[in-house]
Amino acid sequence: MKPSGIITLTTDFGECDHYVAMMKGVILSVNPDATIIDVTHQIPSHSIKEGSLIIKASYTYFPSGTVHVGVVDPGVGGTRRPIAILVDNHFFVGPDNGLFSPIIETQRHPDVIHLKEKKYWMHNISPTFHGRDIFAPAAAHLSLGVNPFSMGEKIDNPTHLASPLPQKNNSDLVGEIIRVDHFGNLITNITEEHLGPFLTAKELTIRIGRVTLKKISTTYNDVPEGQPLALIGSSHLLEIAVNMGRATDYFSQDTVIGTKVEVSSLV
Amino acid sequence: MKPSGIITLTTDFGECDHYVAMMKGVILSVNPDATIIDVTHQIPSHSIKEGSLIIKASYTYFPSGTVHVGVVDPGVGGTRRPIAILVDNHFFVGPDNGLFSPIIETQRHPDVIHLKEKKYWMHNISPTFHGRDIFAPAAAHLSLGVNPFSMGEKIDNPTHLASPLPQKNNSDLVGEIIRVDHFGNLITNITEEHLGPFLTAKELTIRIGRVTLKKISTTYNDVPEGQPLALIGSSHLLEIAVNMGRATDYFSQDTVIGTKVEVSSLV
Amino acid sequence: MKPSGIITLTTDFGECDHYVAMMKGVILSVNPDATIIDVTHQIPSHSIKEGSLIIKASYTYFPSGTVHVGVVDPGVGGTRRPIAILVDNHFFVGPDNGLFSPIIETQRHPDVIHLKEKKYWMHNISPTFHGRDIFAPAAAHLSLGVNPFSMGEKIDNPTHLASPLPQKNNSDLVGEIIRVDHFGNLITNITEEHLGPFLTAKELTIRIGRVTLKKISTTYNDVPEGQPLALIGSSHLLEIAVNMGRATDYFSQDTVIGTKVEVSSLV
Repeated sequence: MKPSGIITLTTDFGECDHYVAMMKGVILSVNPDATIIDVTHQIPSHSIKEGSLIIKASYTYFPSGTVHVGVVDPGVGGTRRPIAILVDNHFFVGPDNGLFSPIIETQRHPDVIHLKEKKYWMHNISPTFHGRDIFAPAAAHLSLGVNPFSMGEKIDNPTHLASPLPQKNNSDLVGEIIRVDHFGNLITNITEEHLGPFLTAKELTIRIGRVTLKKISTTYNDVPEGQPLALIGSSHLLEIAVNMGRATDYFSQDTVIGTKVEVSSLV
Repeated sequence: MKPSGIITLTTDFGECDHYVAMMKGVILSVNPDATIIDVTHQIPSHSIKEGSLIIKASYTYFPSGTVHVGVVDPGVGGTRRPIAILVDNHFFVGPDNGLFSPIIETQRHPDVIHLKEKKYWMHNISPTFHGRDIFAPAAAHLSLGVNPFSMGEKIDNPTHLASPLPQKNNSDLVGEIIRVDHFGNLITNITEEHLGPFLTAKELTIRIGRVTLKKISTTYNDVPEGQPLALIGSSHLLEIAVNMGRATDYFSQDTVIGTKVEVSSLV
Repeated sequence: MKPSGIITLTTDFGECDHYVAMMKGVILSVNPDATIIDVTHQIPSHSIKEGSLIIKASYTYFPSGTVHVGVVDPGVGGTRRPIAILVDNHFFVGPDNGLFSPIIETQRHPDVIHLKEKKYWMHNISPTFHGRDIFAPAAAHLSLGVNPFSMGEKIDNPTHLASPLPQKNNSDLVGEIIRVDHFGNLITNITEEHLGPFLTAKELTIRIGRVTLKKISTTYNDVPEGQPLALIGSSHLLEIAVNMGRATDYFSQDTVIGTKVEVSSLV
C-alpha cells in the first residue's frame, strides 16, 4: 500500500503539556514531510473505549495509506504489546489494549503486527511514554513506506475489548448512550443499519429515561428550539439532541454513558 | 486569483470530537498539499456573531488566495444556502447565515456564490454536517484553483446579520462589549477609527459600569499591576483590560457582552 | 546552521481567540513552506516560569535547525528586549524576560541576539502583540535561513530567571513540585541526575506532605490502581502519580506548586 504521508493522532494527553509536541518532533525527525493531523487529544484519561470510538469514526475520511496513531495507554511499560495494523488500506499504530478492536473486528483475517524491530524506535525507550518512543517513530517509518511486516511479527490474538451491541427485545431495539459530544448530543450505539426496519415503520417511539420521542428527525431544526429530537448523526449513529440546546442539560441525570435507549415500532 | 494553498478553519466544534479531523481528512483527500490552519474551534455553540468577529479579525494576516472556512451553522440541513465569497483577494466558504456579514459588507458589489455544483461535494451529504460534506471539499477545490463561479450561482442577497455600531450621543461615543478574550480582556466594538477625534482630546474619560478611566494607554503595563486600563488592542478595537489580571474578574457582573462603554472628551 | 523549516509555538494565548492563527498567517506570509507545530497555548496566563519548563523539555525532540517561538510576555510593549537565541543547533525567539533562561544557562557563551532589524518585522508593530508583529516574522525569516546575527546585536546580559534547584540537606535531597500535568501528575524539579546516588540505595523514602513512598517505580502500574507512586517521568524528572488516578486528587491541598518533596536513603 502506498503511504499518503498523513499521520493522524488520537490521544488522552490533553493540550496543556508538551507530550503531543514531542511525538510530532519525533515524527518530523524521521519523516520531515509528514502531514500530521490531530484528531483529538481530549479522550478522557485512560478511556480506551472512547478512544476506539473516535478512531473508528474518523479514519475512513482520510486518504488510503494514512497512518492512524492512537495512544490511550494506561498499561504503558507493562506487558501489553505495541502493535501496527493494516486494515482497509489504512495503517494503525498503538498499544494492543483494545483501542483498535472496532477496526480489527471488521476483518476475518486482520494483519496485526507485534512491533519488535527496535531500529524503527527511538534509541532510549521511556517505560512511561511509548507514544513518543515507539509509536511515533514507527508511524513515521510507515508513512515513508517501510513494510509493516518488517517491523515485527504477525500475531493472531490481538486484545479484544467488547463493545455493547444493541439488543433485540421482541420487536424493540435496546441500545445505549456511548458518548456525549461537544454540543451535548448523546451518541448511541444504534447504527443506521440496526434501525433499518424501523425507518419504514408506521409508528415509531424512541424512549430515553422518561422522555419519549415519536420520530427520527432529519436535522436539528425539525423541532422547535429547546425541544429534544432523535436523528441519525453524521457518523451514522442514532443520536439524541436538543435543537439549539444541549441534550445533556435537557435530560440531566439520565444522560450518563450507559443509559438505555429503546426504539419500538408498531408495524 | 492564485490560491495560496492555505485553508483556515473557524468553527464551534470544540476539540473533544472527531468533527474537525473529518473535515481535514476530506480536504486532504481532495488537495493532499493543502496547508490547514485552525483559527479556533472554540466559538461558543451556535454563536454566529462571535464566529463572524473572529473571521473578520484574522483573515487579513494570511496570504492572498487563502480559503477561510467558517462553520457555525445551527441551521444546517434547513433552507440556508451554502456559499462561497470572494473579497479582498481571499475566499470564504460556509453557511449563508450572517457568519460572513462583516466581510461581505466591506464591499459594494461582493462576489457571493450560492454553492450548487455537487461534483465539488462529497458523494453523500449528511443533513447535519455540511462542514464535512460541502464546505470542506468546496474549500479544497478552491485551494486547487477551481473557479468559484463554476461552483454555483452568483447571488446578490446574502443574509445580513446586523452588528451593533457605536453611537454618537452629543460629544460622547457609546459602544459596547462584544467579546471576552482568553486573558479576560473586554473587547468593544469601538474601532481606532471611531476614536479618531478623541485621541487628540485634552481630557478623555472612558466609562464602563461604575469605573471611569482617564486615558487610553499604550500597553498593559502603563498602569500598576491589578489596575484597569483601556487601550487599542492588536485587532484595532478599544479594549478594557487589567494589568497582570483579568478584567472579567475586576468588573465582575458588569462585564457581560452588550455592556455599554462610553467615551467622552472635553475638547 | 541549516534550518529544518519547522517552527514551534509555545504561548499563553489559549485556543478561543484568533491570536495564534494571526501568528501562523504572518509566518506563512513570509515562509509559505514552514511547518508550524503547536507545543501548547495553555501556559497559565503570564507564567514565564511554566513556559520556560515546557520549552526546555520539548525542544530537543525536534530536528536541528528548528525555530522555537515562545510568547509568554506580560511586559510586551515595555522595555524588555525581543531576542533570538542559538543554542544546541536550535533557534529560539521571544521576549527577553527569562522565558529562555533554562536554555541559555546550559551554555557558557550563549549566542543571544537583541532583535533590532525592522526589515524582518511586520510594518506596523502593535505595542501589545509582538508575538505577531516581531517574533512570528523573525522566526519565519530564520526558518528561511536568514543569519540571526544580521537581525540585531549580540548581547551578553540576557534576563536571568532563577529556577529553584533541589537542595542537599544532610543525606536528604529536598526538591519541590514545579508543574501539574494533564493527568494530575506532580512534576518535581528533581532530575534523574540529582537522584543518581539514591537509585542504588538499599532503602529509600520519598516524602510529600503526609505521604511516604518507599521506592521509585518504573511504570504507573507497578502499584495497585488508586495507589500513589514516584517514578522518573518521560522528561527525566521525578514525578508523583497515582495509578489510573490523579495525584492532584489523592494529595488534595498538599499538591500546590512549590510543595516540598524529600528524598532520603539509608545507604
